Amino acid sequence: MNINKLHEMTNWLNKEHLDGVILTDYHDIAYLTGFNSDPIERVLALVLFANYEPFLFGPALEVNSMVVSGWQFDTVGYEDNQNPWKMIASKLKSLTSGTQFAIQFDQITLSRYNALKKALPNVSFLKDATGQINQMRLIKSKDELQKMKVAGQEADKAFEIGFNLMENGISEISLASDIEYQLKKLGISNMSFETLVQFGAHAANPHGTSSLIPLKSHEMVLFDLGTIHDGYASDATRTIAYGKVDDLSEKIHAVVLEAQLTAQSKAKIGMTANELDNIARKVITKAGFGPNFVHRLGHGLGTSVHEFPSIVAGNDLILKEGMAFSIEPGIYIPNMAGVRIEDSGYMSKNGFIPFTETSKSLYQH
Amino acid sequence: MNINKLHEMTNWLNKEHLDGVILTDYHDIAYLTGFNSDPIERVLALVLFANYEPFLFGPALEVNSMVVSGWQFDTVGYEDNQNPWKMIASKLKSLTSGTQFAIQFDQITLSRYNALKKALPNVSFLKDATGQINQMRLIKSKDELQKMKVAGQEADKAFEIGFNLMENGISEISLASDIEYQLKKLGISNMSFETLVQFGAHAANPHGTSSLIPLKSHEMVLFDLGTIHDGYASDATRTIAYGKVDDLSEKIHAVVLEAQLTAQSKAKIGMTANELDNIARKVITKAGFGPNFVHRLGHGLGTSVHEFPSIVAGNDLILKEGMAFSIEPGIYIPNMAGVRIEDSGYMSKNGFIPFTETSKSLYQH
Repeated sequence: MNINKLHEMTNWLNKEHLDGVILTDYHDIAYLTGFNSDPIERVLALVLFANYEPFLFGPALEVNSMVVSGWQFDTVGYEDNQNPWKMIASKLKSLTSGTQFAIQFDQITLSRYNALKKALPNVSFLKDATGQINQMRLIKSKDELQKMKVAGQEADKAFEIGFNLMENGISEISLASDIEYQLKKLGISNMSFETLVQFGAHAANPHGTSSLIPLKSHEMVLFDLGTIHDGYASDATRTIAYGKVDDLSEKIHAVVLEAQLTAQSKAKIGMTANELDNIARKVITKAGFGPNFVHRLGHGLGTSVHEFPSIVAGNDLILKEGMAFSIEPGIYIPNMAGVRIEDSGYMSKNGFIPFTETSKSLYQH
Repeated sequence: MNINKLHEMTNWLNKEHLDGVILTDYHDIAYLTGFNSDPIERVLALVLFANYEPFLFGPALEVNSMVVSGWQFDTVGYEDNQNPWKMIASKLKSLTSGTQFAIQFDQITLSRYNALKKALPNVSFLKDATGQINQMRLIKSKDELQKMKVAGQEADKAFEIGFNLMENGISEISLASDIEYQLKKLGISNMSFETLVQFGAHAANPHGTSSLIPLKSHEMVLFDLGTIHDGYASDATRTIAYGKVDDLSEKIHAVVLEAQLTAQSKAKIGMTANELDNIARKVITKAGFGPNFVHRLGHGLGTSVHEFPSIVAGNDLILKEGMAFSIEPGIYIPNMAGVRIEDSGYMSKNGFIPFTETSKSLYQH
């Protein structure tokens, strides 16, 4: 349970003259309560009030886990045959006659919003809590950064394992699953997403999945992976050679590496996300591969592997101390080759401090 | 690409006097288009019209994959620095001046709904497409059932592997990851969810996760697992003994088994979901464990591992030929023991046909 952040939310409610907020994103709920559980299609909600103690609402079969996780305030459970919105409404009305509540516009579905309005016809849900939650999660505390650092070390371990597993004929899927398997044997059992391994031309699809393609000599191998340590995610990518690779592969690797290192070394507090994206993009465009860098430079991460800030052209968000995000330029040449190099890290007074330290060289042996 | 289902959607639009529908659930889009990709926080949309050819909209870096996946109509890609809703709006307005569009109320978030309304101020989104999509996905074709049968055989294989891996001192996490690892070596690389293994009293938490607890003799072991074959999910659970277990464990296993087999044998076309839930619940309640069966009897599955129909008290949905769902009663006694036994299967004229055939006996050796 994060009592400081709960207070921060209460302060926000008072500042905004709201009676309360109904939060429904399970990552945000985990962040505030310590109870980390994906309710899938069931309803999980944290209801905070300006003037009363909060309650945590969810499936009856989860209530015990809520208490075990350290949540010290009230809990309400519902059975599958009960209407969760009516139950939230009745609990809420037993505590307050307030009518101004915030909700998470970017999380609640239209049908749930309609159900909530029906259950609480006298309550207005005009205020979006998204900005406040994002703002709160955007700046990581020392404690959070420490967890992310450990997750980064786990990712470094994963690269080490993966680099050593490269051998003729191994498939992308086998290599990916062998990495996860060996990590689990070391007690690192939560990946922040499914480990991606891509060989040669297959890496030209930046959103592909690992396949049964076997590894051949003279191919590049792309590893995109991350773990979760104590609730916090890592995310990093390396593209390295398996045997000597062709000139084009060497060329695009060198360009991506320059773009990545340039962005990493020039990232400064006070710069905008747009400017940072532009620094990397310029290097790639100058080398003639601008159209082949088809995605944003990076994304925030924390308790989710994708969260604010988005490091993208057009985003005027100013980089501040404690923001954590990825720097991951890439060049993708359809049917030929793909390279992406990524570190996640955080902004400090001394610039960008990466969580991962694995060498980015094309030739590692 | 499922041309029959696309036609079915067009027919529905005409019947409902709608100009089109904007679908945003990626599972539903995969079902209709063959393009299966989770856009995470980006936007993926399938726009179908009553009188024009559809278009598939998504991240620019996915457009190539859309075409490769077999989608034969128009595609529109957007870059990270573009507003996807404005782009959908402008493409839509280039095709029709129609103003009546359906959307998926249970999928679209309030902020996306607001962005869509802002981009298309003259269009009304009063109709919810959720019911139509669910209805369409609810009845599985022979082809779909065949894929689910193979996924079920893969789950049977997973149980066989898991049963053979039980040994003193192995942890829940190791057992779960060893199952997935051995499956991958057999070319079965997609699980429908993270394999769950729970020992002894730990299984009393029906929504827990695998832990580092080591296996001891005289404990029950719960395996809840499933794979994805050709886009279709399996989901099954077995709870078996590792050495002789105590009387309470034997008792609750026998009760859950009776409830599961009774529900499975009495499931009939024309019965309601509520009635089927009640058949299993009665067996457990009669034995005195009613309060320990804390969840619904089952859930539909198909391209998702949780979809319609929900087999739950109060659901008057009538079971029809071709519906596929799980039957998974359980008894959970906090700090002592938990048993769940689950087969997924489908309704036929001859009753419920399970996709999994692994023995449900407590003692398997």
